[in-house]
Amino acid sequence: MTVRFGVIGTGAIGTEHIRRVEHRLSGGKVVAVTDISLEAARRCIDTLRLDAQLYESEDELFQDPSIDAVIIASSGPAHEGSVLKAIGAGKYVFVEKPLATTTDGCVRIVQAEARTGRRLVQVGFMRRYDPGYRALKSEIQSGRYGAPLMVRCVHRNAYVDERYTTEMAVLDTLIHEIDIVRWLMEDEFDSVQVLYPKSTRHAHARLKDPQIFNFFMQSGVVVMAEVFVNCQYGYDIQCDVVCEDGVISITSPQFLDILHAGLRSHPLMQDWKLRFADAYDAELQDFIDHVECGDGPRGPSSVDGYIATLVGDACVSAQTSKGWVKIPQIRDPNLGGF
Amino acid sequence: MTVRFGVIGTGAIGTEHIRRVEHRLSGGKVVAVTDISLEAARRCIDTLRLDAQLYESEDELFQDPSIDAVIIASSGPAHEGSVLKAIGAGKYVFVEKPLATTTDGCVRIVQAEARTGRRLVQVGFMRRYDPGYRALKSEIQSGRYGAPLMVRCVHRNAYVDERYTTEMAVLDTLIHEIDIVRWLMEDEFDSVQVLYPKSTRHAHARLKDPQIFNFFMQSGVVVMAEVFVNCQYGYDIQCDVVCEDGVISITSPQFLDILHAGLRSHPLMQDWKLRFADAYDAELQDFIDHVECGDGPRGPSSVDGYIATLVGDACVSAQTSKGWVKIPQIRDPNLGGF
Amino acid sequence: MTVRFGVIGTGAIGTEHIRRVEHRLSGGKVVAVTDISLEAARRCIDTLRLDAQLYESEDELFQDPSIDAVIIASSGPAHEGSVLKAIGAGKYVFVEKPLATTTDGCVRIVQAEARTGRRLVQVGFMRRYDPGYRALKSEIQSGRYGAPLMVRCVHRNAYVDERYTTEMAVLDTLIHEIDIVRWLMEDEFDSVQVLYPKSTRHAHARLKDPQIFNFFMQSGVVVMAEVFVNCQYGYDIQCDVVCEDGVISITSPQFLDILHAGLRSHPLMQDWKLRFADAYDAELQDFIDHVECGDGPRGPSSVDGYIATLVGDACVSAQTSKGWVKIPQIRDPNLGGF
Amino acid sequence: MTVRFGVIGTGAIGTEHIRRVEHRLSGGKVVAVTDISLEAARRCIDTLRLDAQLYESEDELFQDPSIDAVIIASSGPAHEGSVLKAIGAGKYVFVEKPLATTTDGCVRIVQAEARTGRRLVQVGFMRRYDPGYRALKSEIQSGRYGAPLMVRCVHRNAYVDERYTTEMAVLDTLIHEIDIVRWLMEDEFDSVQVLYPKSTRHAHARLKDPQIFNFFMQSGVVVMAEVFVNCQYGYDIQCDVVCEDGVISITSPQFLDILHAGLRSHPLMQDWKLRFADAYDAELQDFIDHVECGDGPRGPSSVDGYIATLVGDACVSAQTSKGWVKIPQIRDPNLGGF
Repeated sequence: MTVRFGVIGTGAIGTEHIRRVEHRLSGGKVVAVTDISLEAARRCIDTLRLDAQLYESEDELFQDPSIDAVIIASSGPAHEGSVLKAIGAGKYVFVEKPLATTTDGCVRIVQAEARTGRRLVQVGFMRRYDPGYRALKSEIQSGRYGAPLMVRCVHRNAYVDERYTTEMAVLDTLIHEIDIVRWLMEDEFDSVQVLYPKSTRHAHARLKDPQIFNFFMQSGVVVMAEVFVNCQYGYDIQCDVVCEDGVISITSPQFLDILHAGLRSHPLMQDWKLRFADAYDAELQDFIDHVECGDGPRGPSSVDGYIATLVGDACVSAQTSKGWVKIPQIRDPNLGGF
Repeated sequence: MTVRFGVIGTGAIGTEHIRRVEHRLSGGKVVAVTDISLEAARRCIDTLRLDAQLYESEDELFQDPSIDAVIIASSGPAHEGSVLKAIGAGKYVFVEKPLATTTDGCVRIVQAEARTGRRLVQVGFMRRYDPGYRALKSEIQSGRYGAPLMVRCVHRNAYVDERYTTEMAVLDTLIHEIDIVRWLMEDEFDSVQVLYPKSTRHAHARLKDPQIFNFFMQSGVVVMAEVFVNCQYGYDIQCDVVCEDGVISITSPQFLDILHAGLRSHPLMQDWKLRFADAYDAELQDFIDHVECGDGPRGPSSVDGYIATLVGDACVSAQTSKGWVKIPQIRDPNLGGF
Repeated sequence: MTVRFGVIGTGAIGTEHIRRVEHRLSGGKVVAVTDISLEAARRCIDTLRLDAQLYESEDELFQDPSIDAVIIASSGPAHEGSVLKAIGAGKYVFVEKPLATTTDGCVRIVQAEARTGRRLVQVGFMRRYDPGYRALKSEIQSGRYGAPLMVRCVHRNAYVDERYTTEMAVLDTLIHEIDIVRWLMEDEFDSVQVLYPKSTRHAHARLKDPQIFNFFMQSGVVVMAEVFVNCQYGYDIQCDVVCEDGVISITSPQFLDILHAGLRSHPLMQDWKLRFADAYDAELQDFIDHVECGDGPRGPSSVDGYIATLVGDACVSAQTSKGWVKIPQIRDPNLGGF
Repeated sequence: MTVRFGVIGTGAIGTEHIRRVEHRLSGGKVVAVTDISLEAARRCIDTLRLDAQLYESEDELFQDPSIDAVIIASSGPAHEGSVLKAIGAGKYVFVEKPLATTTDGCVRIVQAEARTGRRLVQVGFMRRYDPGYRALKSEIQSGRYGAPLMVRCVHRNAYVDERYTTEMAVLDTLIHEIDIVRWLMEDEFDSVQVLYPKSTRHAHARLKDPQIFNFFMQSGVVVMAEVFVNCQYGYDIQCDVVCEDGVISITSPQFLDILHAGLRSHPLMQDWKLRFADAYDAELQDFIDHVECGDGPRGPSSVDGYIATLVGDACVSAQTSKGWVKIPQIRDPNLGGF
């Protein structure tokens, strides 16, 4: 069986997902697309030579019974509505992060999905599919290094434009660390504090850059996460887990080692899409594989999306308070039923 | 259009290629299989739950007009006959190395393909699709480091079993370096010498291990290639290109950096299939893509397969002579017409 | 001229300094020793075959007019008295850290030295002589990377014994980071906060381990310093300076790269004395050289020793308070006159 | 006791050795100097403010009974005469490589020293004192990696001037690899072959660059040594020992790791004097220490100097022959009596 996809949102990320399904992954086919700009959707069909239906609205798309699953790659605020309708229509959903922009929105999605009694939704936290993070988790779980005590995360981009604000450092950037640390450590966040070092001269008017987020996990593990989005030198993702008997770190992919002009050097990645290219492919292939065999997705769930939003909200609060902000703990049975 | 594959040979490599087409790549489908052991072929269909025809012979398979392309993954000596029949039947051919076990056999294939006026054949030299080698070639070609002067290649396996002989170090192992150096340097081999260092105690009765192959290329570049197939510590592929103004080396993929027990360490790959997993996927996806659009394959050609066999034969001669063995140069127009 | 040394304290560190002067450095000679245990002092003379006078008290030693300089390597609480007497006797002083165990004691020393109108005292912050830190400072000062924004320090020991307490993490361990960061950044500490992650099972009853110290410098630079003294895997000193346009880190000295048993590895240093062996030699050679030519020492001054104690005291306060502790700023002219 | 040195030759290397004895090492003093240019010798005394006698000839210097040991840092062809006279005068000798420029000259020295019944001579093969090579030898000897099978050496300089000829690649450059490989492996050279790759455009008229020297050791170990003296990018010394169960390599000293401008990089050393600065200090300190205690030197002996010259001569022969050149084996009892 081939998984038949409808795609909502044909911007950069949506187009990339379509290319993936059509040209790099196995078992899926894009059969329908829509976008708030029909012009954009039509151009996408033409450019990629898709054999796909153009729907004028997502509502029509959801009514197409030949569609098995939808990819939601529209702008963040539109996610909640689309996901809820897709669940209502009984479609499987692959939704880019954030699941929804508010915790209430996330709760509505988790509850709607819970009422179907099935897993339908997967959130696009692709790092869980990165070979480096997977190897890291496997080493942690081996027990060889004892219990984890501290985690250090670094998330650096070469630069961002003026639309990027202090808050977006949480919602667009740190959100990946929030999810991956929960997944790596199988532990929940307890509280958060923000430190603002001296800002780089490359920061914009509405952006403090870099920022440091210190967390306590429920287990007592401390997580120190740096977000620095105008670091100039490249795209750089680091993660060290300090355990009782050793330290495990992911490395940056590098293909060459060059001796030249007085330096031994390795070219650094500049583009986050390249850094996680394999992970983007693997997350969607995993979604297709599990939808294909009827199990429903096994990747990051709507509850994961909800918790990321919850922790992200606490981080945003911490950005404007001086001290530690406590992160609410989830005890609602409606949210734990998966 | 989906490329419809027939697969000849359902051993380990054939099965891996089928899995690739069915579960990881886009645009292909396995519709028929055969094997000298029909039992094995049947088991393969069952295990992988293929929706594919089982043919009792490759002749029947080649007559199936619904098949666009064949994957030849049988044992080396069987390749020539299968490739020639596939060309005769007008099928595209993806053949594992070697193209044929004799240079005469390779010539027959090159000539048969030439007579069709089209490119039909691609040989499975997957390293050309490895991101490391591709980045290396791109740096060489940038001109930034001046002309290449020397190449150092290392090909080490953790261990081999007793069936592996001194000759196989050329035909099964070094053959990859032979192809990749030609491709990297866009240069042809001129002569070869073999040095036998003291053998490891892990070598078997019929195997000298390690072996060193020194080559001159036509340009005067010297290539030093070590084959060491019982190195114990892991699978290790190295390639350094020493140029006039710098040295460029590929690195081994590594995902983790570990501080533990008095060491900073990186786990090494043990399995060649993992080391080049991305390259194996990429070569077959490239084959599918170019067959799909009707161009015919763009990967390693039958002439590349022929030259690898020619150089490999010279290396085998050099294994039993004391001095330098000259490598014949190709001037036959029937072999240069691509 | 040869610098004639009296040594006060012939324990492990004192003996090591004597060996240095007698066997590895140029221009110095140990002519007298004393220790609270005369037995130990005598044994030291015998073992090292010193041609040196044994004094029964430091007072006698200070009265010996043939002595140019003293090395004070007694226990911390004894330092203040010895340094003050040495200044009184007009001797040059090389004193191991801490200069004194209280800030008042440090002030008395700074003032006594100031009254002589000369520089007499050097404190044993040897890291300022480490080639790695020196190269790091030189890169920062090159301006090539823009202004520093954050510093990350890691100070890990394989293990400590049960006498080592939570406070000693500051006074014995972090004190080196305190001095080196001031020196690297040419900036003063403003405030400090302590975080206690989950403790390792290898920690003792009176020790929280690891500990994290977050600092603001007066410039707004944030310094994050981890002290982890039972990390098990080795002695590990890290320092990264994150600047506006790049990140500069010191590396751990390593001599070998080993491929073995499935790993690529580098042996880690286990012993802090080896890690900074060159720096220990260089600091004392520098002291000798400057004393020899009559300039007086140029290394870490009594004011540096005073400030390290001041910042250390704030860190100890922060260990038992919940929030940020402000570090007093030095404005006393008696302390700034060098 | 202080070792009182006479220095013959006050050029760059001689001056550097004087500085070492006077300002960095313990237990030695320069009490006399001479040079074929008295002007240069006088300038050296003035510049370094030496309290040393200027002798008009080495003969006068050797007659000074207050001198314990001589450092011979004159030009290579002058070494033999000076060493023989120094032995005749009963002085200890530290002589820069080469011991003598001919094997006959080396034999005369070995025999003259043998007749004294004592070890007097140490040759300046400083690499034996490099911490990297020492760690490498210690790992080889641990037995952990099985028997060595192959050694790869790389000796690269950024550039040389037009006086440097093809032959000097052996006598000035490769000579260090010749000595260090014998010492590392405790094995003797058996035969040598030279390969000339395409030359760099940076080579001069009288220089083929790079050159490859392949050796068999008596044990059957193969040594591949590259000399490339216009590599442009820096001074680079590599040595890998491939053993039955693992590979051990020395690393280049590096102090910093820099993330900047799209690269992760480490500055490379440009200056061979810096690369082996610690080794230069250690070899002379070792000489002083053993002379001081009356044992005589323990470092590279006159026989080591003789064998290096013998192997070097074979390499020079191999530079102009096409095939393998056999290296004479030493069986003369007059040469083996140490």
